[in-house]
Amino acid sequence: MNQDYIIPSNWSILEEGFEAGRVEASESLFSLGNGAMGQRANFEEYYSGDTFQGSYIAGVYYPDKTKVGWWKNGYPEYFAKVLNAPNWIGINVFINGEVLDLASCKEVRDFRRELNMKEGWYERSFTAVMPNDLEVAVKVVRFLSLKRNELGVINYQVEVVNSDATVIFEPYLDSGITNEDANWEEKFWKTLEVKTADEQGFITAKTLKTEFHATSFMQSALFKNGSKVKTECTEVTFDEKIIFRYASDVKKGEKISLHKFGGYVTDMNHKRPDLISAAKDVLNNAVSAGFDVLLQEQKEAWAAVWEMADITIQGDVKAQQGIRFNIFQLNQTYLGEDARLNIGPKGFTGEKYGGSTYWDTEAYCIPFYMATKDQHVARNLLTYRYNHLDKAIENAEKLGFSNGAALYPMVTMNGEESHNEWEITFEEIHRNGAMVVAIKRYVDFTGDFSYIPEKGLEVMIAIARFWQQRTNYSTKKDKYVILGVTGPNEYENNVNNNWYTNYIAKWCIDYCLSSLEKVAKEYPSDHGRVLQKTGLSEEEMAGWKEVSEKMYFPYSEEYQVFLQQDSFLDKEIIPVSELPKSQRPINQKWSWDRILRSCYIKQADVLQGFYFFEDHFSKEDLEKHFDFYEPLTVHESSLSPCVHSIQAAALGRMEQAYRFYLRTSRLDLDDYNNEVKEGCHITSMAGTWMSIVEGFGGMRVTDGKLSFNPQIPEGWDSYSFKLNFRDQILKINVAPGKTSFSLEGNEPLEILVKGNTVKVEPSVPVTV
Amino acid sequence: MNQDYIIPSNWSILEEGFEAGRVEASESLFSLGNGAMGQRANFEEYYSGDTFQGSYIAGVYYPDKTKVGWWKNGYPEYFAKVLNAPNWIGINVFINGEVLDLASCKEVRDFRRELNMKEGWYERSFTAVMPNDLEVAVKVVRFLSLKRNELGVINYQVEVVNSDATVIFEPYLDSGITNEDANWEEKFWKTLEVKTADEQGFITAKTLKTEFHATSFMQSALFKNGSKVKTECTEVTFDEKIIFRYASDVKKGEKISLHKFGGYVTDMNHKRPDLISAAKDVLNNAVSAGFDVLLQEQKEAWAAVWEMADITIQGDVKAQQGIRFNIFQLNQTYLGEDARLNIGPKGFTGEKYGGSTYWDTEAYCIPFYMATKDQHVARNLLTYRYNHLDKAIENAEKLGFSNGAALYPMVTMNGEESHNEWEITFEEIHRNGAMVVAIKRYVDFTGDFSYIPEKGLEVMIAIARFWQQRTNYSTKKDKYVILGVTGPNEYENNVNNNWYTNYIAKWCIDYCLSSLEKVAKEYPSDHGRVLQKTGLSEEEMAGWKEVSEKMYFPYSEEYQVFLQQDSFLDKEIIPVSELPKSQRPINQKWSWDRILRSCYIKQADVLQGFYFFEDHFSKEDLEKHFDFYEPLTVHESSLSPCVHSIQAAALGRMEQAYRFYLRTSRLDLDDYNNEVKEGCHITSMAGTWMSIVEGFGGMRVTDGKLSFNPQIPEGWDSYSFKLNFRDQILKINVAPGKTSFSLEGNEPLEILVKGNTVKVEPSVPVTV
Repeated sequence: MNQDYIIPSNWSILEEGFEAGRVEASESLFSLGNGAMGQRANFEEYYSGDTFQGSYIAGVYYPDKTKVGWWKNGYPEYFAKVLNAPNWIGINVFINGEVLDLASCKEVRDFRRELNMKEGWYERSFTAVMPNDLEVAVKVVRFLSLKRNELGVINYQVEVVNSDATVIFEPYLDSGITNEDANWEEKFWKTLEVKTADEQGFITAKTLKTEFHATSFMQSALFKNGSKVKTECTEVTFDEKIIFRYASDVKKGEKISLHKFGGYVTDMNHKRPDLISAAKDVLNNAVSAGFDVLLQEQKEAWAAVWEMADITIQGDVKAQQGIRFNIFQLNQTYLGEDARLNIGPKGFTGEKYGGSTYWDTEAYCIPFYMATKDQHVARNLLTYRYNHLDKAIENAEKLGFSNGAALYPMVTMNGEESHNEWEITFEEIHRNGAMVVAIKRYVDFTGDFSYIPEKGLEVMIAIARFWQQRTNYSTKKDKYVILGVTGPNEYENNVNNNWYTNYIAKWCIDYCLSSLEKVAKEYPSDHGRVLQKTGLSEEEMAGWKEVSEKMYFPYSEEYQVFLQQDSFLDKEIIPVSELPKSQRPINQKWSWDRILRSCYIKQADVLQGFYFFEDHFSKEDLEKHFDFYEPLTVHESSLSPCVHSIQAAALGRMEQAYRFYLRTSRLDLDDYNNEVKEGCHITSMAGTWMSIVEGFGGMRVTDGKLSFNPQIPEGWDSYSFKLNFRDQILKINVAPGKTSFSLEGNEPLEILVKGNTVKVEPSVPVTV
Repeated sequence: MNQDYIIPSNWSILEEGFEAGRVEASESLFSLGNGAMGQRANFEEYYSGDTFQGSYIAGVYYPDKTKVGWWKNGYPEYFAKVLNAPNWIGINVFINGEVLDLASCKEVRDFRRELNMKEGWYERSFTAVMPNDLEVAVKVVRFLSLKRNELGVINYQVEVVNSDATVIFEPYLDSGITNEDANWEEKFWKTLEVKTADEQGFITAKTLKTEFHATSFMQSALFKNGSKVKTECTEVTFDEKIIFRYASDVKKGEKISLHKFGGYVTDMNHKRPDLISAAKDVLNNAVSAGFDVLLQEQKEAWAAVWEMADITIQGDVKAQQGIRFNIFQLNQTYLGEDARLNIGPKGFTGEKYGGSTYWDTEAYCIPFYMATKDQHVARNLLTYRYNHLDKAIENAEKLGFSNGAALYPMVTMNGEESHNEWEITFEEIHRNGAMVVAIKRYVDFTGDFSYIPEKGLEVMIAIARFWQQRTNYSTKKDKYVILGVTGPNEYENNVNNNWYTNYIAKWCIDYCLSSLEKVAKEYPSDHGRVLQKTGLSEEEMAGWKEVSEKMYFPYSEEYQVFLQQDSFLDKEIIPVSELPKSQRPINQKWSWDRILRSCYIKQADVLQGFYFFEDHFSKEDLEKHFDFYEPLTVHESSLSPCVHSIQAAALGRMEQAYRFYLRTSRLDLDDYNNEVKEGCHITSMAGTWMSIVEGFGGMRVTDGKLSFNPQIPEGWDSYSFKLNFRDQILKINVAPGKTSFSLEGNEPLEILVKGNTVKVEPSVPVTV
């Protein structure tokens, strides 16, 4: 871990003391989001130190088409770039004419940040001695309303401690913003209209090329010692900026505060000509409700989220803080209500990984949303891919596939591939498999098989076609091989016969064939419709079967394990434990070619297969593969530790499982990979949830029944989680030696606990 | 081949007939350059059809730093992008108020282009019926002065054939230009000053970030039926544009012509405050000399170039045209006088391949410049790399190498790597070997060993260090292996033990060790200096020797050939002859991943090694490898056919050698790879020269002596070439059954012809 300044707390993320070197990391950690928009924890007031400015609107992107390097046939037209949106949070503060800037104060003391996850607000406070020797105590509370998802609220309070003084607030809007990720100072927004009326400010800007229109807006109110005061508002407008200015004379010790209301309305939800009036509505409603009412709404909205999603841990504050941070961030990023949206790997906390949707959603996020939200949320996530099927087929066609074969994009905003690296775009094809795994998991967990005949089957057929076409027949081996791929371990590129890819390819075909049989029997009209639509023939299915039966899997007799890929053993096999600490993380210390030549594994690869298909292998097999691969794994993907935590728990190695759990749950808080300033790792946070539920809790779905194998890390008094299982809520509480289950619902539920059947009646807790 | 509209001619490139679909290809083929600047053959007058505008200044680039995809540790800061420079050739033409635009004329007849290579000018003529039914005959002559390399000259003549009319010329300068290769309409030049005085126009602009300052300039004069006429000049200036307007009333059949003088002066050759006065000097001198005198100078300058560099072919006009086109373009691109410059793969004919210098220079261009220019030109090219040694060491350090190991950049403008694709930048390391091959070739050809103790040895030591550090020891094999490379065949990436790379690595070490011995004996003070400077120890050299002796070379017992790389035979081996024509070129028809999975070879790879190290192998070895690899080669690199032509000739397969020769010499004229509109393949043109000299002529240097094995393609009457060998000029003329040698110089020269010693006395031709 690279930092330990976050103070442990059950419900809050806390930082104390001001250090300029931590500002960018904290900007990530204290980020706010409400599913529709979000922003890094940038200071409202002017700050001349290093900062990474970021405010993001869900679904808004720029189609970057720069051609770095050789353009390869089959590349997408552009790469979706996440855009920093106009700034609405800014408030310049002047005390007796001097600007407040933490980077140039003589002293900053009592600096404190709190992200209150229970109630969904962020507070920052400090006392600063300014160059003019005025001592000011500042407290700022900010939140993005869950209930009114176009609204953000700030309460910026200043007290001049050692003198009477004139305090000027300059709340502003600024659309003259740039991106961190840009070719020099390139701009991506064009300002269309700058408008003020009645102390309300509006800037309408559109993104270049994609032409998303967004109006950012603001209105402020001034309070002295808690009472509203009327001050003159001076107004200055520029081409891309509006500044309102409120000046007040305050006595020593008086508290003056500015309530600023702001946010975005966009043409994804309003007609373009209506944007300003929509913004006015948001402002008028917000101002008339006032800060306190809005904050109360916020607390209630978050209470409802936690009611279902919370995981409690007794006896380990850091672990408790970690899991809640993960659950909080997931809910800040995606709430499941807008089927056009998905879960971006950085959420609203940074720009990296342009595009919103990766295989992360299917491989890691679905279980969390499935178990902690209404069932339709997970179905929405599956439907997102169903709606993109035509584009996935087009995408495969660009690469030379035919007959309705589909390759889902590695990264996308709207179904089109928007990533431009051949070894990823064209070769990391295993992602196709995760689409089908997600369908299977959904069906197994919810029991809702109807998704398959209605939608899933078409996706599965298109994917089976892709796999068949992507194999080559090797005469020498009398097997089907898959050449030139990148597996989940992105620290190897362009390898032959990545075991995970070959395995999931075969499985996709098998699962599609068995689903076809079931649909033929149980949903004959859907079966007819789908066969008609896809033109699938017996002959084609026979071809699939042939590929599935003769799929090649590289295996080492010497080590008695499946090989990650054909030439894995050509590398020098030296465990990570022998790597000097100074060399890690290798993706920051080593050049790419050196990483590729090494045996080090970024994230579960063969073991990812053992995770998805655990029931295909014996525990001994798992152990052998875990013991071979984990020691070579550097876990430099945020998606790595959770899988290993679950597997260590399955092997009964709770101490190791707990270490991986800490690493996944506190990946960002403790900055394990030395990159949190670029943003938090949102999608992997769902993996943290899995580490507890599937890892420690040992939750599986077996033949339509929930089963558990509860264990508890040493030192924990207990932990609890809830599952929304087929419209009933099962709460599980695990303590050393005993596990209790309680059910909210109407039907008794049969579950398995360490292999034994237990019947749980509604509202009658059972302890085992 | 994809086109055949270029009319065969011994000294000219000719096109007849106007076809809009050919415009962009012809813009490449009829490009002009003078070593310092150049431009595509864009029309002077307005053209609303598809066109690729390009005017380039040697050494001027933009540091593109867009991060598409994941940024990899070790990547350079930016990618050098060739920039389209301000337009100085533009002349709008209006006849009776209507703009002349070939895309909208009712009829265009007698359209003809001629690039006169002998004299270095380009002429375009046509008769067009405009929408207003006026019929205009136009003839435009343009050249870029070799003698005054900041000057270009245009003579634009109009005759209205069927009416009296008012003809308006609007010569202009325009710095509001964009790039083909850009993120949408991004601009790379900032205009600093737009100035006019006395009918002279000047626009000074700087490139963003790199801040190259360039002043483009123009002045025009009007002639009626050959006599200068004085007309009023109206002047309009904009932010990024100057237009002068000359209106004349002309009678039917009168010829009105505008002489436009223009070009660039830059701060690479002038102080910034002096740019406009330098431009004025160029203009004043040009105008006072006048078009005819300048054209005469041009003819003389090109005559001097051809005197040394020409290759004549009797009896095959297409072959003659091809080789002259290649020699002409090479001399348009690089004349050897400015040691800061080098030979860009597209010269001044397009933007592709940003950056100016590739391994092409060392692997393909050095022999041409060595034999057709003064010896100092080749030494300048070697010195270019010596001057970049520190940056090559820095570059290797970025990738984790140490102790003065050097990795020369794949692409560079100034010694820094400026290419951003890991499989090229980090893995195509064989380029390092070409640096040493060039030194060896230079020493062998010129006899000037002094370059090694003075400069070359340091380069060779740094490269030997790199190779040693880049190997891994394989216990299993008891050999040194080189993992994760891209060989010359860029249709395979990230492979293990590319034979060419391993072979050249070993050879670099051996050649460095033997050079060290020779320097120690013959240049002891240089030896001491270099050892001191590099800190090279006996122990380190022993380490090199160990690597050299135990280098691993993949070999197939089955096919009895060295394998291109470890897993080459995992691919399906299907000869190119079985590929349907519709699938080629595969780099345009197939997606990249499919290419990588295929066995198809872009350019000589194992055979490149057999080319460089021909004397290490028997003719039988060559034959076996040629017969194995050539049938799998698609020759989609411009650098491919020449090597195969030379080897086919060495194997006595003249018919095949001739086919490859046509393909290399007419690659662009016949557009074999369907991409000539992007620009011509300049560096490969030196390979064409080699195909004749080393291929048909069989020229080698053996123990300091020139040796020949002359052959002649069927149907040729004869061919001749000259070699500047150690300051004497040997002219070789080959006819069926007899070869004559004549020598300009003072010393008799012993040469080998088909293995027999022949003594050539100065000025006494010998026929064998």
